[in-house]
Amino acid sequence: MGHAMVDMIADYYESLPSLPRVSPDVQPGFLRGALPPNAPEQPESFEAVMADVRDKLMPGVVHWQSPSFFAYFPSNYSFPAALADMWSSVLGMVGFSWAAGPVATELEMAMMDWLADLCGLPPAFKCNGGAGPGGGVIQGTTSEAVVVALLAARARALAGRPVADRLKLVAYSSDQAHSCFKKACMIAGMDHVRLLPASAEHDWALQPEALKAAIEADVAAGLIPCFVMASVGTTSSCAVDPVAQLAAAAAGSGAWFHVDAAYAGSAALLPEHRHHFAGLGAVDSYSFNPHKWLLTNFDCCCMWVADSGPLKEALSLTPVFLRAAAGNSLDYKDWQIPLGRKFRSLKLYFLLRMYGAEKLRSYLRHHIALAGAFAQQVAADPRFELAAPQRFGLVCFRLRGVPREVNAALLAALNASGRLFLIHTELGGAYTLRLAVGAATSQLEHVQAAWAAVSAAADQVLAEHGVAAAAAAAAGKEVAAAGAGSGAGARS
Amino acid sequence: MGHAMVDMIADYYESLPSLPRVSPDVQPGFLRGALPPNAPEQPESFEAVMADVRDKLMPGVVHWQSPSFFAYFPSNYSFPAALADMWSSVLGMVGFSWAAGPVATELEMAMMDWLADLCGLPPAFKCNGGAGPGGGVIQGTTSEAVVVALLAARARALAGRPVADRLKLVAYSSDQAHSCFKKACMIAGMDHVRLLPASAEHDWALQPEALKAAIEADVAAGLIPCFVMASVGTTSSCAVDPVAQLAAAAAGSGAWFHVDAAYAGSAALLPEHRHHFAGLGAVDSYSFNPHKWLLTNFDCCCMWVADSGPLKEALSLTPVFLRAAAGNSLDYKDWQIPLGRKFRSLKLYFLLRMYGAEKLRSYLRHHIALAGAFAQQVAADPRFELAAPQRFGLVCFRLRGVPREVNAALLAALNASGRLFLIHTELGGAYTLRLAVGAATSQLEHVQAAWAAVSAAADQVLAEHGVAAAAAAAAGKEVAAAGAGSGAGARS
Repeated sequence: MGHAMVDMIADYYESLPSLPRVSPDVQPGFLRGALPPNAPEQPESFEAVMADVRDKLMPGVVHWQSPSFFAYFPSNYSFPAALADMWSSVLGMVGFSWAAGPVATELEMAMMDWLADLCGLPPAFKCNGGAGPGGGVIQGTTSEAVVVALLAARARALAGRPVADRLKLVAYSSDQAHSCFKKACMIAGMDHVRLLPASAEHDWALQPEALKAAIEADVAAGLIPCFVMASVGTTSSCAVDPVAQLAAAAAGSGAWFHVDAAYAGSAALLPEHRHHFAGLGAVDSYSFNPHKWLLTNFDCCCMWVADSGPLKEALSLTPVFLRAAAGNSLDYKDWQIPLGRKFRSLKLYFLLRMYGAEKLRSYLRHHIALAGAFAQQVAADPRFELAAPQRFGLVCFRLRGVPREVNAALLAALNASGRLFLIHTELGGAYTLRLAVGAATSQLEHVQAAWAAVSAAADQVLAEHGVAAAAAAAAGKEVAAAGAGSGAGARS
Repeated sequence: MGHAMVDMIADYYESLPSLPRVSPDVQPGFLRGALPPNAPEQPESFEAVMADVRDKLMPGVVHWQSPSFFAYFPSNYSFPAALADMWSSVLGMVGFSWAAGPVATELEMAMMDWLADLCGLPPAFKCNGGAGPGGGVIQGTTSEAVVVALLAARARALAGRPVADRLKLVAYSSDQAHSCFKKACMIAGMDHVRLLPASAEHDWALQPEALKAAIEADVAAGLIPCFVMASVGTTSSCAVDPVAQLAAAAAGSGAWFHVDAAYAGSAALLPEHRHHFAGLGAVDSYSFNPHKWLLTNFDCCCMWVADSGPLKEALSLTPVFLRAAAGNSLDYKDWQIPLGRKFRSLKLYFLLRMYGAEKLRSYLRHHIALAGAFAQQVAADPRFELAAPQRFGLVCFRLRGVPREVNAALLAALNASGRLFLIHTELGGAYTLRLAVGAATSQLEHVQAAWAAVSAAADQVLAEHGVAAAAAAAAGKEVAAAGAGSGAGARS
């Protein structure tokens, strides 16, 4: 059965470019009638199960690995990571403490150091075999990393203070920060949450002056700055907050400073993108998800801290039944919310060795170039505008000067076709389409096909909505006639 | 490479009974010198990686799937679940919302209903296609389920109250509850945590009178009862709190009532054990881990709630970029801490179909019988005592009437041999060994070998510590001569 599954996986992977739809054409409830109401009493065959997977389940799949999947951010699958997960699965080793799985702890420390060096992270973030105050840990998701960072922040802020001071704690980020910031504040029970406005003027990056002013106002009001989160590569537009300047603005406030680079953190492997990460030496914690763009199958969120003390203060209890063996050099259960944890570092070990750093850098540059090709098409077509500068693999764009329902209709038309999958966001109140390039299978032809589809759908919705359609189209054609690689050109 | 990995997995699985050691003989830092300090620049072969896995990593593995792994609770691996995970991996579908992976949401609802029926759970816990107020959700771990339940409790308790009331909230459980209860309270910032004492007199079960008195005292003091957690099968001794009576004692207090059956919950598949779960119809939420004893590879914690409203109140934000499509019948991101999530229900689908309910019940009964065989040996040997009644697959035992260091020496001698792996706990201040039967590979011969090892090691440590060794051994032999299946008999 394992051999058959391997072959089916290879077949599925090869079929990705030719799948008729990226996102499914199903409605809520589509599966309910197709399944029996109860589990069977007697065993059924693998073949019967796989037949139902094919006939009943697959029609409801969003093909995240399709080369024409441009929604959200990518969720990379790679064969090295898949092989590692197969091995990790049969070990079934729940390495919450060193004693429960020594190699899980030791390899995680080593891989977090390998990755720290590949990304040019500050030395204080390295594990060095568990010796130092800092180190890296694999969390499940960025949401968990942010909660953990916030809990460490809270523990540090409340040390030596009366209990009631927890009502005075304040957390700061940009209004462009991922929603997990706000959710973490809800989880930790933070009553004062500042989502400081970022604007198009600064490409949606949070400004240090805004942070400084907010902190000063809160301190003057008797509140306690506790946590600041900056983003490198926001979800909406891949905005990059100026980490060094923000850290300087928060310095002296006592607040814990976390940097979330969930998607864009992979780009730190590229020297030419390293400047986006300047200032990490001045922050308390940093995290990004190799499970997004770095070929490490979900889940794998890498988080580093300069000092793990407050983390353990917030999360460690070490009950007696876990103190089974001596020599617990580093127990990762004290660095995370759950007790149980998988042997996830094995994925990074297989990936980093079987790809090698050079090939990983090429891989990332390839996607950035593909997104650049699409952005160029957008920029060259006067019907459209780039809603933000292209950064990394993300292009934010919209039809220019039309009511929002026209852009919404454009997205709906594209996704209804099933041939590609995008989502939208809001930037400054404007309905904006996002094209995120990052599937391992994506090639230039798929991005070109995406532009052709966008351009054709634009013709259609502009016509349907009668919004200066003729004028817009005419303008588009004029430019197309003049410039190579334009929208009209790509349509042909 | 996939085919080679499948063969290696099969070989490893077959080798489990004959491995020389269950837990490794390594020291912290063992791996550091064996790995290069940096990731390679150029790709390395799968063969080279697997050679290092064999030579460098495997010596640091705890073999959780070994038939002689009796530590913690089991972490079951099964081939159906492994096959499902391979398929889930290549899909790489992050189904945080219905739109991001319709089949992930729909199958999860269906599997949670299948499992609810198999366990005889109350109808209010069923998803019914997302229609009802209640439903089931797959969390990563029990720790996360308890945090989520506590956050729902807090949201419900604080609704309509002033913010400062969060300082008055109280959480209750037994001092035998899993440490994740206390950790959840730390995470949620609960200042008042009552770990009510349970005693040997009641087989370590929390008594309703104790809960009622604690709630009344807190209410009288102006505090607000917020959360009660009962346990079915504690980690130390598999104690079973009387859920129905505890729920009655807490009724009217307004507190959210959660039941944690992390390990023992699988036993709800067995009609003859269903009485341990009586009273679930009166509680707010319930969770257990199929990834422990129900052959569903880590991670898979199944959680049900009677009303998902407070959960969503505590955890939902729904930012605009996730509102991509219409018809989000149920978005599981609002039922959990992380945003991202795997297609984990596929494991349950493969498992439940390829085993069938009858075979799963036999599987559970098999382990309970094996634990029973071991408990019988303990009970028949006067050197030993059972520290708690055998429940499910767990036997708690110790040398009778000896200083605690002698029992500690017994455990150390057993684990040093490497032939089996156990851990200890504290029960009423007494050092107690735990033998948890639950690896899928465990058979009677392995439990008999474990008893032989325990008995022989007892001879050794009693002699070494000179603690009434002669007398104890003599008493042991007397009984052995009289009764079949005794300690001395198993030693021969």
